[in-house]
Amino acid sequence: MGNKIIRVNMTNLTTVVEDVPQEWAALGGRALTSTIVAAEVPPACEPLGKYNKLVFAPGLLTATVAANSGRLSAGFKSPLTGGIKESSAGGTAGQKLEKLGIKALIIEGMPENDVWYSLHVTKDGVAIKQDAEYVGIGNYELYRLLSEKLGKKVGVLSIGPAGEFRMAAANISVKDPDGNVRSHGRGGGGAVMGSKKIKYITVDDTGGPGVSLANPENFKQQARIFAKAMLDHPVSGQGLPTYGTNVLVNILNEAGGLPTKNFRFGRCDHAEKICGETMHDLIVSRQGNPSHGCHPGCIIKCSQIYPDQNGKYLTSGFEYETIWGLGANGLVEDLDDIARCDWAMDDIGIDSIEGVVIINVAMEAGILSWGDGKEAFRLIEEEMRYGTPLGRILGNGAGSVGRIYGVTRVPVVKNQAIPAYDPRSVKGIGITYATSTMGADHTAGYAVATNILKIGGFVDPLKKDGQVDLSRNLQIATAAVDSTGLCIFVAFPALDIPEAFAAIYEMINARYGTNLTAEDVLEFGKYVLKTEHKFNVAAGLTSCHDRLPEFFEEQLPPHDAVWDFSDSEIDEFWNF
Amino acid sequence: MGNKIIRVNMTNLTTVVEDVPQEWAALGGRALTSTIVAAEVPPACEPLGKYNKLVFAPGLLTATVAANSGRLSAGFKSPLTGGIKESSAGGTAGQKLEKLGIKALIIEGMPENDVWYSLHVTKDGVAIKQDAEYVGIGNYELYRLLSEKLGKKVGVLSIGPAGEFRMAAANISVKDPDGNVRSHGRGGGGAVMGSKKIKYITVDDTGGPGVSLANPENFKQQARIFAKAMLDHPVSGQGLPTYGTNVLVNILNEAGGLPTKNFRFGRCDHAEKICGETMHDLIVSRQGNPSHGCHPGCIIKCSQIYPDQNGKYLTSGFEYETIWGLGANGLVEDLDDIARCDWAMDDIGIDSIEGVVIINVAMEAGILSWGDGKEAFRLIEEEMRYGTPLGRILGNGAGSVGRIYGVTRVPVVKNQAIPAYDPRSVKGIGITYATSTMGADHTAGYAVATNILKIGGFVDPLKKDGQVDLSRNLQIATAAVDSTGLCIFVAFPALDIPEAFAAIYEMINARYGTNLTAEDVLEFGKYVLKTEHKFNVAAGLTSCHDRLPEFFEEQLPPHDAVWDFSDSEIDEFWNF
Repeated sequence: MGNKIIRVNMTNLTTVVEDVPQEWAALGGRALTSTIVAAEVPPACEPLGKYNKLVFAPGLLTATVAANSGRLSAGFKSPLTGGIKESSAGGTAGQKLEKLGIKALIIEGMPENDVWYSLHVTKDGVAIKQDAEYVGIGNYELYRLLSEKLGKKVGVLSIGPAGEFRMAAANISVKDPDGNVRSHGRGGGGAVMGSKKIKYITVDDTGGPGVSLANPENFKQQARIFAKAMLDHPVSGQGLPTYGTNVLVNILNEAGGLPTKNFRFGRCDHAEKICGETMHDLIVSRQGNPSHGCHPGCIIKCSQIYPDQNGKYLTSGFEYETIWGLGANGLVEDLDDIARCDWAMDDIGIDSIEGVVIINVAMEAGILSWGDGKEAFRLIEEEMRYGTPLGRILGNGAGSVGRIYGVTRVPVVKNQAIPAYDPRSVKGIGITYATSTMGADHTAGYAVATNILKIGGFVDPLKKDGQVDLSRNLQIATAAVDSTGLCIFVAFPALDIPEAFAAIYEMINARYGTNLTAEDVLEFGKYVLKTEHKFNVAAGLTSCHDRLPEFFEEQLPPHDAVWDFSDSEIDEFWNF
Repeated sequence: MGNKIIRVNMTNLTTVVEDVPQEWAALGGRALTSTIVAAEVPPACEPLGKYNKLVFAPGLLTATVAANSGRLSAGFKSPLTGGIKESSAGGTAGQKLEKLGIKALIIEGMPENDVWYSLHVTKDGVAIKQDAEYVGIGNYELYRLLSEKLGKKVGVLSIGPAGEFRMAAANISVKDPDGNVRSHGRGGGGAVMGSKKIKYITVDDTGGPGVSLANPENFKQQARIFAKAMLDHPVSGQGLPTYGTNVLVNILNEAGGLPTKNFRFGRCDHAEKICGETMHDLIVSRQGNPSHGCHPGCIIKCSQIYPDQNGKYLTSGFEYETIWGLGANGLVEDLDDIARCDWAMDDIGIDSIEGVVIINVAMEAGILSWGDGKEAFRLIEEEMRYGTPLGRILGNGAGSVGRIYGVTRVPVVKNQAIPAYDPRSVKGIGITYATSTMGADHTAGYAVATNILKIGGFVDPLKKDGQVDLSRNLQIATAAVDSTGLCIFVAFPALDIPEAFAAIYEMINARYGTNLTAEDVLEFGKYVLKTEHKFNVAAGLTSCHDRLPEFFEEQLPPHDAVWDFSDSEIDEFWNF
């Protein structure tokens, strides 16, 4: 486990290496970033001001041989939601930070002048360089240039033009093993990094201490159980590897929960054209790769290399939510159009969930026509990339577009875009959208699993019964998993296969010599949620912000479902 | 007093006339609009959605012979602040509504289709007409055309293009006695009116019942005392009539409280070029009118007719805050440039306080250069008027410009622009900015009077002592005055001359046959504030929103004053 904290102060351009305080010793990933942000960032501060901090922390199992343990957490006060934010990503930087023994990298302050910097993390610490060489350049080109200059193996965290413009929908991007782009997507971390005038951070673990295990034999045994469960489970072992997350288009469409035309309908007539099965066949026919991992050690491989019709790389990490947002919710029928938008958002460094809902609300506002994938691409590529006035409106999120154009049909909670599952016909996920400390976020407590996929039991998606409990249990478990550095998709086997769940805390025990139990894991998850919630309350978020937008009172075909939770029913969530 | 409530439902295009409920009988102006909004608008609703209501109510003394009794209140949930809003204006519509016996006009719902309407209020009720004839036209031209069509005497409430675009800084404009433009300025009432698709409302009091008095003799006697006090007091009797509100440039500059270059300095080097004395001489030399009333019965006449160098009408209602914002805070040195911007904002229907701070933040963001009054005019006239993307960013308020451009030096509270008095060196007004239910609003509790003008005693502007009590007392008194239909400037004599204060409630007693005492007036003011505050809390505003922006921790020359109130000191405000 990392045994040091590195602080980088961008006001006076100094760094300091600290021992890990006792109270942070057992924390990693989201638990650690949220603890540090809650302890050190004044809740009411300006998200883009000098008092905000940007914290990176590998998870408790990051960089071990545990399958799918490559995730890195980024934490900060969000310029999008005004609350606390943790956003996790794959790529290679997280594992390298862990291998350097760095438990957390805390970036504080901000330069007073308009000068750009890069940070370089090695076994000797962090070097801060004045560096405007790559400012204005997109992530793909940046990674190519840095690989040429520093070697392919160096990990990179970066912002694209969106982060430079301090857009609230800006990602912190991460280089993946092939030099492509992964993202700390949600909540505008890229704007925070941009406010601190850091274009990119390199991580070179050469000569680092690496990862040691308290009980290597136990670890190996539990890691084997864990990996087997992942491969045995139909979702992580078959559905995701074959079709990627886009396996969900047909599933949600069938369930009447695929939001279509900005949440007017629950089914999409042209689902067949954009679904995972179609995409898989297209990728294969173009000699792309339908199954690809976002970080070393991934065995789910839900990513893919999606080529254009000439077989040339078009995009990767092409997720269901992106395809849903343009394809169903925006009525774009051509997967290639959607893929080009996905590439452009990754390159510019725009959260591709926020990004697609931005386009949906722009359609609602009449800025472009429904279904116009070419114009969607132009808005991203020509307006957002260059920070034109329209590009800045768009880059600041779906809520921004709504406010600026006086449109009220805007699917956001705490100003963050609602993703690809209609809360009226998948009610458990609606509770997650409403109550998550992160703003609308399906990954915070993926009730779709139990409502639709019948994983971890079954709770009828169309009824209110049991949804608050379901979402609460999932959010607690997710907060714990987000602290391990494991990919959230390990939750599918963990929910259905008891040994898989046990293997997670047993691997932590074998790594650190601890004696965690299942109960401890849940207490850990509760601690994370309560820490985040307390920060949000102090930042001025109230139960009024735990609500879905007004328009969800409308009936959603085909089930004519409505959002019918009372305020007090929703507020029950926090009774734990 | 008005004895009927008229409700206009814009969803089904119906109107209904109701008796005044007993609990509203003693209310008028702000007390009535805030009571109705608090009772009938769901606090968490979409401000531009169908559940918001727009309420117009004359004050308790509106349309009597009492001097300066021409104000009309507009109430709604604000799209700018997210809280309750009351905004008062002169013009002629308020007096005409009162003379028609209308205690409140409540506009509810919104049309489902994109069709424009006008409302026509007469002794026979309200006619709703489908009417797109004047859509896109500015207020000045609209008033000219409507005067031609309907006669000069008809009162008009309207929105300019800004309200049509549902910009959060949009006014509801009011025709004044000369056919010029006055404004319900703050908080985006124009956007609410635009969301309900009403371009304008005419008010024709022909054949109305007029105003009756319970005790005409007493009324006359008290009105005389009241008028005399106004003429005797140096501010309302001399300073304002001679120099307009712009008398304040030199006074605030001298005090080191004239915010300059977006609140970087407390004094402005070129104050002489933009001050009231210079403006007065310029108006006189161009044969304009330095002293003009915004409504019939005004004896202060702080407005003026400001002509251009050829003697042609350029603007009126040319206030200190507008001149400060472009002149000192934006470093524009040419009064004519500022006057042209003022005219354009009135014509387009943009709050001229929000508008100037919008320009200041745009300067901060590099959209235009400091001091460039020509470009400021172009941004208003070419971008805002036509709702270009940049125009929409600007039209949505200073906070919007800051968010969209990632700028944090943004002087707003509850997302409403801070006006022309630096809270660090005029600390009483800082408490008003922080705590007002309306967002930053100097008129909500004008502590400048006691801090700087030494009216109603003296509280040292540079010290914290006594400021919370001062602001509380003033906010309570102001809430009461805002309910009378009297201009807020009657507070100057009322604070210094005991008979003037007594005359206000004695005129109410003489009008309605009541027995109000001074104590009752204060209780009334407290009731208004508490009603508004309760709405705001239910809408999700917390004590976190009763705070000034972070940058006020910087020292302000020449006194090197900082904003040094603790959170708990500010929160003492609500202990009454």
